[in-house]
Amino acid sequence: MKPVIAITMGDPRGIGPEVVAKALGRIPPQVCSPLIVGDSHILAKILRLTGSSLKVIEAEEGVQNFRPGSIPVLSLSQFSGWKIPGSIPPEESSRASFAYIAKAAELALQGKVEAIVTAPVSKESINGAGIPFRGHTEYLAEVSRTKKFVMMLTGKRLRVALVTTHLPFREVPRYLREGKIRSVIEITGQALKDYFGVKNPRIAVAALNPHAGESGLFGQEELIISRAVRQANGKRSLVSGPWPADTVFYRAQKGEFDAVVCMYHDQGLIPLKLLHFAEAVNVTLGLPFIRTSVDHGVAYDIAGRGIASSRSMEEAILMAARLARQKRKIQNLKVDAAERR
Amino acid sequence: MKPVIAITMGDPRGIGPEVVAKALGRIPPQVCSPLIVGDSHILAKILRLTGSSLKVIEAEEGVQNFRPGSIPVLSLSQFSGWKIPGSIPPEESSRASFAYIAKAAELALQGKVEAIVTAPVSKESINGAGIPFRGHTEYLAEVSRTKKFVMMLTGKRLRVALVTTHLPFREVPRYLREGKIRSVIEITGQALKDYFGVKNPRIAVAALNPHAGESGLFGQEELIISRAVRQANGKRSLVSGPWPADTVFYRAQKGEFDAVVCMYHDQGLIPLKLLHFAEAVNVTLGLPFIRTSVDHGVAYDIAGRGIASSRSMEEAILMAARLARQKRKIQNLKVDAAERR
Repeated sequence: MKPVIAITMGDPRGIGPEVVAKALGRIPPQVCSPLIVGDSHILAKILRLTGSSLKVIEAEEGVQNFRPGSIPVLSLSQFSGWKIPGSIPPEESSRASFAYIAKAAELALQGKVEAIVTAPVSKESINGAGIPFRGHTEYLAEVSRTKKFVMMLTGKRLRVALVTTHLPFREVPRYLREGKIRSVIEITGQALKDYFGVKNPRIAVAALNPHAGESGLFGQEELIISRAVRQANGKRSLVSGPWPADTVFYRAQKGEFDAVVCMYHDQGLIPLKLLHFAEAVNVTLGLPFIRTSVDHGVAYDIAGRGIASSRSMEEAILMAARLARQKRKIQNLKVDAAERR
Repeated sequence: MKPVIAITMGDPRGIGPEVVAKALGRIPPQVCSPLIVGDSHILAKILRLTGSSLKVIEAEEGVQNFRPGSIPVLSLSQFSGWKIPGSIPPEESSRASFAYIAKAAELALQGKVEAIVTAPVSKESINGAGIPFRGHTEYLAEVSRTKKFVMMLTGKRLRVALVTTHLPFREVPRYLREGKIRSVIEITGQALKDYFGVKNPRIAVAALNPHAGESGLFGQEELIISRAVRQANGKRSLVSGPWPADTVFYRAQKGEFDAVVCMYHDQGLIPLKLLHFAEAVNVTLGLPFIRTSVDHGVAYDIAGRGIASSRSMEEAILMAARLARQKRKIQNLKVDAAERR
């Protein structure tokens, strides 16, 4: 059985529909059973635009209907009247993009899909349409009542997990609390075991200050990180740090660590995007279901022109499928162990 | 005429002597005329230890005496009695390491050498020996009465220039003043023209906040950077930014920019060391003479064991020679132009 994966189409006015359509044309059918949550008219239009031989078929909720050469779409909007995606009124487009996410989350919480892959939406536009929305990850955490979640970005050579994400630079230090850092380390360790098949994860924790703080000369942050590292250690994970940030990523991509826990957005994103510019995948850890995402935005400026790269979407779908299979394997092992008792 | 380059030997107790000796064994003789400022006994010992066929010859100040197969050493200390470098008393070793730097600076200021390459010393040890010393760069700026200087790190694919260097993370924002950023951009642009042979430098300036501040949502820093960029632009340099830090280095190493001006230490050092771990060279811009340096420390723990990598020292010497030749070329062009008038 192939993993069933819900893929949200993203904002109809953005490049989401295009990257979804292109990605599905490139991913081998044995990888997963995709279910697009979006708009069947727009997807059909994009398939024609990009010269794809795939056909859209309307899917019904709960009915799996995966025929070769077809893309099943759970259609929640009807943008048939619009000739160019860019001509859809922003409010309608944004509301629809939010509805796709809400439905995908519902399917995942009901166990009807094993993973969610999200295409880009515009946070500002959704807010502009009167829907309070702080971002995909925050929304999914809220509806699944998840308090502790972690943003991880992965590529073939490097995985980074972030302690803080979209914060002003100057506010980073005061968000670095021992409990928070420890929890990010632990969630990262657990995810490496459950989803990535790493038996005894080696997790490096980056320092905040240059040269790892030069023995406390630069502030107390490295002491806080040190304590979190000590607390998080031992639970079948090898946690080390705080390491100087300017060498830890080099060491990680050489194979010394399975992931690097980073204190702030650019600390993790600079090395990740340098190594994996087009193919990095965003994985949300700590949710009750698997969720991956592209690491780019709606790119309204190039939408509908057929020139967007679907590389990140392909990787996001492949990653979701891989994680779903790994999760099944671990669950089967647990069932086997329970039955042997 | 080969460029004459003074190479300080670094702290006798560290890996400096070893990396200098190894590097000189590997650099083709036509590259430069090196003059080691250090200790002839220690260097002779290291050459034997590493199985080098090079011979130490005592140099006299102002007398160029470069014979093939030999290393001319201006010897300022006499550590002949010590069998292992590590057994030299720290105070004596540190004082000597400082004396080498002072002499090299003197030679450069007198025009007796065209560039200085520095091996690592320990700032703490030099201070411990009662000599106030804030670091190589600060000392060289002081004796040459240079107020504005810039730390640049270079590798084959990436050059980064730092607006702030060894500051606690939390203090970075308040050091980011428009005038300072502008001056770093301008010194970087000038150096790219004079030393690196780039006619119309394309300089990218990195933002401080994630996503380049999301249009001011995250603070005023990007506005300050924007103003500095506008001010610095036009003087035969193409200056742009503030760019999101998580993609600007990818773009730079692909060839879109000649250098990236960075707001803080790890912003520049993370991407630089990821791409150029062992071969990055530190170049001080703005001094009246050329100065390059290794980007590693004294590494007391492995000193005298023959296992230190001389890669960074080799690159630092090659870079100094390249910059000296380029500087000559530019000066000759200026002389030619003056004569034509």
